[in-house]
Amino acid sequence: MVGQRVERIDAQEKVTGRGVYTGDIKMPGMLYGKVLRSPLAHARIRRIDGRGAAALPGVRAVLTRENLPVAFPYYGSHVKDQAIVAVDKVRYAGDVVAAVAAVEKEIAENALSKVEVEYEELAVMETVEEALKEGAPLVHEEIRGRREPKYGRGGSYIMHEGNNICLHFRYERGEVEGGLAEAEFVFEDTFYFPSAQHYPLEPHISLANFDGHSLTVWSSAQSPFALRHELSQLFAMPINRVRVIISYVGGGFGAKDGIRAEAVAAALSRQAGRPVQVAFDADGAFKTICQSRAMVKIKTGVKKDGSFIARKSEVYLDAGAYANNSPIVCQKAAYRVHGPYRIPHVLSDAYLVYTNTVPGNSYRGFGAPHVAFAYESHLDMMADRLRIDPLELRLTNLLEKGEEYAPGDTLMDCDLKGRLREVAEAIGWGKGGEGIERGRIRRGKGIACAVKDGGGGPPKSVHSMVKILGDGSVLLSFGSVEMGQGIRTALLQVVAEELSVSAENVRVAELDTQYTPFDRGTNASSAISVMGQAVLKSARDARGQLISAVARVFGVGEELVRLEGGRVVFGRQSFSFGEAMKLCFGETEGEVVGRGLVMFTPSDQVPLGYLSPFWEIGIGGAEVEVDEMTGEVKVVKYVSLTDAGKMINPLQCRGQNEGAAVFGLGLSLFEDLVYESGKLSNSNLVDYRIPRFRDLPREFRTTVVEEGGGPGPYGAKGLGEGGVLSVAPAVCNAVYDAVGVRIREVPLKGENVWKAILARREK
Amino acid sequence: MVGQRVERIDAQEKVTGRGVYTGDIKMPGMLYGKVLRSPLAHARIRRIDGRGAAALPGVRAVLTRENLPVAFPYYGSHVKDQAIVAVDKVRYAGDVVAAVAAVEKEIAENALSKVEVEYEELAVMETVEEALKEGAPLVHEEIRGRREPKYGRGGSYIMHEGNNICLHFRYERGEVEGGLAEAEFVFEDTFYFPSAQHYPLEPHISLANFDGHSLTVWSSAQSPFALRHELSQLFAMPINRVRVIISYVGGGFGAKDGIRAEAVAAALSRQAGRPVQVAFDADGAFKTICQSRAMVKIKTGVKKDGSFIARKSEVYLDAGAYANNSPIVCQKAAYRVHGPYRIPHVLSDAYLVYTNTVPGNSYRGFGAPHVAFAYESHLDMMADRLRIDPLELRLTNLLEKGEEYAPGDTLMDCDLKGRLREVAEAIGWGKGGEGIERGRIRRGKGIACAVKDGGGGPPKSVHSMVKILGDGSVLLSFGSVEMGQGIRTALLQVVAEELSVSAENVRVAELDTQYTPFDRGTNASSAISVMGQAVLKSARDARGQLISAVARVFGVGEELVRLEGGRVVFGRQSFSFGEAMKLCFGETEGEVVGRGLVMFTPSDQVPLGYLSPFWEIGIGGAEVEVDEMTGEVKVVKYVSLTDAGKMINPLQCRGQNEGAAVFGLGLSLFEDLVYESGKLSNSNLVDYRIPRFRDLPREFRTTVVEEGGGPGPYGAKGLGEGGVLSVAPAVCNAVYDAVGVRIREVPLKGENVWKAILARREK
Repeated sequence: MVGQRVERIDAQEKVTGRGVYTGDIKMPGMLYGKVLRSPLAHARIRRIDGRGAAALPGVRAVLTRENLPVAFPYYGSHVKDQAIVAVDKVRYAGDVVAAVAAVEKEIAENALSKVEVEYEELAVMETVEEALKEGAPLVHEEIRGRREPKYGRGGSYIMHEGNNICLHFRYERGEVEGGLAEAEFVFEDTFYFPSAQHYPLEPHISLANFDGHSLTVWSSAQSPFALRHELSQLFAMPINRVRVIISYVGGGFGAKDGIRAEAVAAALSRQAGRPVQVAFDADGAFKTICQSRAMVKIKTGVKKDGSFIARKSEVYLDAGAYANNSPIVCQKAAYRVHGPYRIPHVLSDAYLVYTNTVPGNSYRGFGAPHVAFAYESHLDMMADRLRIDPLELRLTNLLEKGEEYAPGDTLMDCDLKGRLREVAEAIGWGKGGEGIERGRIRRGKGIACAVKDGGGGPPKSVHSMVKILGDGSVLLSFGSVEMGQGIRTALLQVVAEELSVSAENVRVAELDTQYTPFDRGTNASSAISVMGQAVLKSARDARGQLISAVARVFGVGEELVRLEGGRVVFGRQSFSFGEAMKLCFGETEGEVVGRGLVMFTPSDQVPLGYLSPFWEIGIGGAEVEVDEMTGEVKVVKYVSLTDAGKMINPLQCRGQNEGAAVFGLGLSLFEDLVYESGKLSNSNLVDYRIPRFRDLPREFRTTVVEEGGGPGPYGAKGLGEGGVLSVAPAVCNAVYDAVGVRIREVPLKGENVWKAILARREK
Repeated sequence: MVGQRVERIDAQEKVTGRGVYTGDIKMPGMLYGKVLRSPLAHARIRRIDGRGAAALPGVRAVLTRENLPVAFPYYGSHVKDQAIVAVDKVRYAGDVVAAVAAVEKEIAENALSKVEVEYEELAVMETVEEALKEGAPLVHEEIRGRREPKYGRGGSYIMHEGNNICLHFRYERGEVEGGLAEAEFVFEDTFYFPSAQHYPLEPHISLANFDGHSLTVWSSAQSPFALRHELSQLFAMPINRVRVIISYVGGGFGAKDGIRAEAVAAALSRQAGRPVQVAFDADGAFKTICQSRAMVKIKTGVKKDGSFIARKSEVYLDAGAYANNSPIVCQKAAYRVHGPYRIPHVLSDAYLVYTNTVPGNSYRGFGAPHVAFAYESHLDMMADRLRIDPLELRLTNLLEKGEEYAPGDTLMDCDLKGRLREVAEAIGWGKGGEGIERGRIRRGKGIACAVKDGGGGPPKSVHSMVKILGDGSVLLSFGSVEMGQGIRTALLQVVAEELSVSAENVRVAELDTQYTPFDRGTNASSAISVMGQAVLKSARDARGQLISAVARVFGVGEELVRLEGGRVVFGRQSFSFGEAMKLCFGETEGEVVGRGLVMFTPSDQVPLGYLSPFWEIGIGGAEVEVDEMTGEVKVVKYVSLTDAGKMINPLQCRGQNEGAAVFGLGLSLFEDLVYESGKLSNSNLVDYRIPRFRDLPREFRTTVVEEGGGPGPYGAKGLGEGGVLSVAPAVCNAVYDAVGVRIREVPLKGENVWKAILARREK
């Protein structure tokens, strides 16, 4: 089963429209909730009056700051900085100021227009630069309920008061100033990475039923247990009275980690005494959460032979109006900004800064795409100045397999040099373009190599359960969310492999926090690498129990009994699982319950306070065509390489890596949230451009290698994010190769490239 | 917590109407299913045509034998003798011949009248006597899929072919013929026990959703896992694709064990492609299932001193048209008919016989009420003939505590003699009536003492789970159904006790076979005595894990850490559970999963093939007033004593015993299913009479003693059925005491008593 191109178990359901998403769930008496968003980016709320809305026939609940259901209405995964609806101020254009539930969607929409709000406008800070200005007004006058992360050796947290810095994390090893002083060359560059929308096909949606004693929430959420925890805190209910049920999720990419529509849906349901569905449309999703914009400054000290000796970096991450998961993104950026290189002296400062823009959150890559764009562009720029081939400069400095990334952390688990050479060869490095440069079209090639620590935060315990039922059929339960990545199929394959049965014999139970074994969340490519371990253990536990029960029945040693071809084999006898279960449990049924628990313990020996479960790899090679007249850049060939450790389902692994690279192409070429006078101006599916099929490179090659050694089943590692990392730098490096201009800011807008070409000519 | 009169956790919900029963669950697109019942008691179906029904607007499915969804449409817990809808014949008036699902109930009702059925009438056998006549036609020409029970020493199964005997079970020990020959006196009597309706306030109801790949059934069922198993067999689906969800159940009493409305609901849903609710009304419930009528013959050999030496019995149990759980009822009757007495030589034959009446099933007491009525009436008759006081005759023969009931089985766990003396004293035995006999009113007293093996069939494994969640709140999961007996409250108390927390801290998860740990079923007073063991183990497992995790954090021995007052105490320090969980699992949550598994192994040393977990006790004392002119009997005082082993919730224990005694009063005085020309004539809530409040004895005393030693938590035993057993014999013995007539058949209809009084006078 493992290593086979098994068809996704959800494929037919999803393609035929039978798959159940949260929006498909309807309850008798269900109301429709709608939210009123602030048109202003920063304003004090003078007065708000929902009475007009409440008076409309069909309206069952109107929620404003005047009738909040709890005394402390603030939530947030790391900082409790966001209220169910705005209390004192609105902090970005799109902030929720009121919500309404009615028997029909149209009535709810109409009711929103009857809510009266008086604002007092405040100065708007649209960028980190504005927010950090001396004397800038504060986005949050008070910061509540901040969860203090515990750092280990090399990591530290620096307190700021009276400014808009939400978090300042420093990562340090060696003596960076001494290192820079020792260097023969010191180079410094600054880069800008865009703010982007996660753009899941299914926007945020939640159905909440508050029945007085308990709260049940059906939601399109990535991390149901964390959501349960947050909702229990927000509504001041014990966790055992909060239940989160997850159907299929139509894409998450980090957007669906944390409270989105759930708080409003639950508060409306509590007020109305009826179930309430709150579904955001595309505009609502754009105005709810995004990837953070970043500025990254890198200064590197290099020896004559090209070897790096020191790197000092600063990352400024735009939190937007509320912090969400950005504190982790910020830490991760600091820990990742020196890249997969051997650098003795490192100092990174990462600042998370509140502004009056759409709140940031985790996003596929967790800060790594931002810094990889910076360090891999910076490397090519240094190579150019040092007159060393960029491939050579990388090979000089790249970590060896088994070398340490940071003292104490998991050793590098991939042959980066060998793999980079493969990509270079695939792209025809050093061989000139394959096509012909004609007229105004110039061709160029670029490469990049990036890694990130994979597997997520410190998930202290991850559980799963495999049951063999009375007829021998198998039920698998785990808390990782199926959001398109195919985790249900992959983990089912692991169980089928361990039990020697076919995929049809295993069913994956629906995810319901009231029953499903605990999981920290579905993020950071952790499902196969972390949850996979628990599932493997569960399956082995169940297998062992079945074998030992049969051995007991026959009074023989367990070593004489084995599972083969879906049967329990003992000498010349063999039994179906159903027969074996009857032997063990009799006619009255019974079940074998296999459990898997994986504990992750914190470590104060590493900067982030816990070991990286594995290294996620993203190596890219790009060939571009640049139109010198327009600056338009076309990626004509792209090679993406990642390391799966071991592929459980090769088809899905390749799909994941392709998807990640396409995400990277979007960030490199098109995607950017554009603000005009504090308001997001492209919050719709027309003006906000993501890659279309015809934007894909004519030659698009995805290679997934299997170096083994991952922490997941059979050596598997996660691979959902690696493919994003190298696209932007590889493309920009290729543009430089083509037309000799260095682009320090993505997306690569034609206009900017054209301006840069002009400027170079003028020089 | 344990031993406290904790308020039922479902009390407020149920009283205020917020409790969710199956009928409260509505799904979008849900259809209403209705069944067409045969008006004839025995007939071949010549032709059936549902096309007229299918043509009605709003009708979405019409199910007849012409379009059955499976090749083998038969089900039954022990014999696969019943089809989803009738195939060849109808076997009782009420047998389901067709079913319809429509968008409105009224349309479905109307559609039923459009189903055309042509019958060919067959001879009807209304009683066991008719069915056993030489040359009687067969109710079932062929008996399919019979589950052969495995008997142990003393139990045997005798095959019959070509007649209406569904099962013949023999229980034997010693040499009964030799024993009878040795006896100084031999007495033989025959008794009749009525057929009764279980009469749960909520009739059978099911909502099924067949989505092609899987079947989900919401149902008012007592034994969800057994139901899942049966549905999986019926619809030829693996068990992991069948899901049974149970809300509150409005009374079961044995009626809701097995497939009732579920098969039709699922088949209609499969045909319609929509969820279908099938709810039977009171008439439908009467025509679906009942308690079996029985004839019991007992012959006892007695020595001069009154000690019993041998007993030979025959039990004839009316299965009705389909077997359901009656095979077990039949075996149990045979194993219980010698009563709690020391009798060296015993031979019991129990016959289960098919007739053309409403199918029988398990019923509160599982055959014990039938035989207890017989053996305790018979005992008084012998005492009268021997001129020994009935109390003395009982004391001479009753088992001592610790004495064996049958070789190899669990020893008697109650001081029957002492307890019987208590009841005799409470009823004022030997002291004459408390009131004054005036005119035609005669007073009399009677006692009875009965036991049954409690805890049900061979439940090979019973699981449960206790989770301590991240904030220290507790979630308890088990598969016993809350059907009014208060099991959720009692098991919650066990968990609260073990974890030293208050009841509010524990929540019981909804019962859903996709998640809930396996349980065999909720019957035979097994919930506290059998499931209770698993819950106790789970709670102790969870407690141990929490203690050891905290001990690990502080690096101390586990013996230094304890739970007290809902806190984890270690030296002078103490933590709330939430704080302790954070210490152990960190900020990211995690959960402690306590598991309890109890295995029951079969034994070939005892007649039924498995040990009785405990003995359920029912001792009763009655005082009656008999109107000599009318024969009317009034129970003016009743004393019911049972042994709880240990009361987890005294309020509920007393409630259970009271309820059981009231059931016994119904059977003794009023309840009986009356057939006229093969048709049930009192299948409604007016003509079928159950006890009303004003029928209760003026003095109604319930004593629950705690002798300890039960297999459940803290020595608890089950006690849901004991109170039923002694009512009928105690009342009939009291009638004899009052007016000198012996009533061998209950219910004690005034007319029969009056006739008996007349006959006695004429003698």
